[in-house]
Amino acid sequence: MKPARFITLEGIEGAGKTTVADRVTQALRARGLTVHATREPGGTTLAERIRALVLDRGEEHISATAETLLMFGARQVHVDNLIRPALARGEWVLCDRFTDATHAYQGGGRGVDRELIERIARAVHGDLQPDCTLLLDVPVRVGLERMQARRGAVDRFEIESAQFFERVRNRYLELARAAPQRFRVIDATAKLDRVCESAIAALEQCLALGPAAVT
Amino acid sequence: MKPARFITLEGIEGAGKTTVADRVTQALRARGLTVHATREPGGTTLAERIRALVLDRGEEHISATAETLLMFGARQVHVDNLIRPALARGEWVLCDRFTDATHAYQGGGRGVDRELIERIARAVHGDLQPDCTLLLDVPVRVGLERMQARRGAVDRFEIESAQFFERVRNRYLELARAAPQRFRVIDATAKLDRVCESAIAALEQCLALGPAAVT
Repeated sequence: MKPARFITLEGIEGAGKTTVADRVTQALRARGLTVHATREPGGTTLAERIRALVLDRGEEHISATAETLLMFGARQVHVDNLIRPALARGEWVLCDRFTDATHAYQGGGRGVDRELIERIARAVHGDLQPDCTLLLDVPVRVGLERMQARRGAVDRFEIESAQFFERVRNRYLELARAAPQRFRVIDATAKLDRVCESAIAALEQCLALGPAAVT
Repeated sequence: MKPARFITLEGIEGAGKTTVADRVTQALRARGLTVHATREPGGTTLAERIRALVLDRGEEHISATAETLLMFGARQVHVDNLIRPALARGEWVLCDRFTDATHAYQGGGRGVDRELIERIARAVHGDLQPDCTLLLDVPVRVGLERMQARRGAVDRFEIESAQFFERVRNRYLELARAAPQRFRVIDATAKLDRVCESAIAALEQCLALGPAAVT
């Protein structure tokens, strides 16, 4: 049995993460792999409850530091109760956002000290790092147009300004440049089908998976 | 107007904190002061929701690190939305548990790295430290007997062993020895009326309040 892999998907709002996550999951399952498709913040019942508290536009101020601590609290619960047990059983995990998102949103977007984020990340998941991170990159204008075309309630991040998302995107690209072996940056301005194909090809290349068996 | 003061109450389960908090609040209000009696984890609607998630004996494992992050997340919300605004208005705050409890329970009790706790505490409340901390000290056996005499549901801390509470108590006493100007250690084995009197006297002495006006 090949070792289980931990894959993360990152990108700003409107980059197409949800669709790409679905298609990548299908492509891996088509190879006969057991894949847990999960997300952050959230991924377990308790972590989803923490997610709801963080994302809700309630009356109380949630500072950037509070946000960071609650995100990492939810992450620790998710790592302990889902991600590590799944990997230990030899099952693959595909996670929509992980610690890179904390660097991008709370660090780049809101200005939380990078050293604090790194210190907490070390305590929360230490040696556990994604084997491959797919960064779906779109210009902020494109992402925001796609986001605005969606229906539904808007959360505490989606109300942020274009300047905020520029800082988030820039931090993501900086993280990708600093870890080129782990990151694959996907041009996500194309049509979604094409973006999904690029993401799957990049993942196969990053993890040296070889061609899929014809099924 | 005298400057507002931030007072914290600490101690293991069964030390009598709730009663002492009530009586100290009354004593301060009798001096004409506006006093916010609050608690941690919790103290605001959102922070109380986080408290419920942390204390609930649910099915998911909450590691010592997750506990620490969620406690500090709730603390940041409490500090930003209640404690700092109250102090800025010149109102006093009496808080049942604060960062010393994280050092005692998550650090002493569960072994979380002291440096991590100190680093996060610096990010969460920086220059804000209690002006006086009353540590209600009882031997663990006494505290546990009192706790068991209470009715009601038992939370994730109350199920812990005597050895756990010995570590918590020892860390509390160590914190008190390291900051003798801020801490007052109260012998809480006496009858509750006597403990309350000692606590009020210790607080007056710690804050150099002078005798209360006869009302």
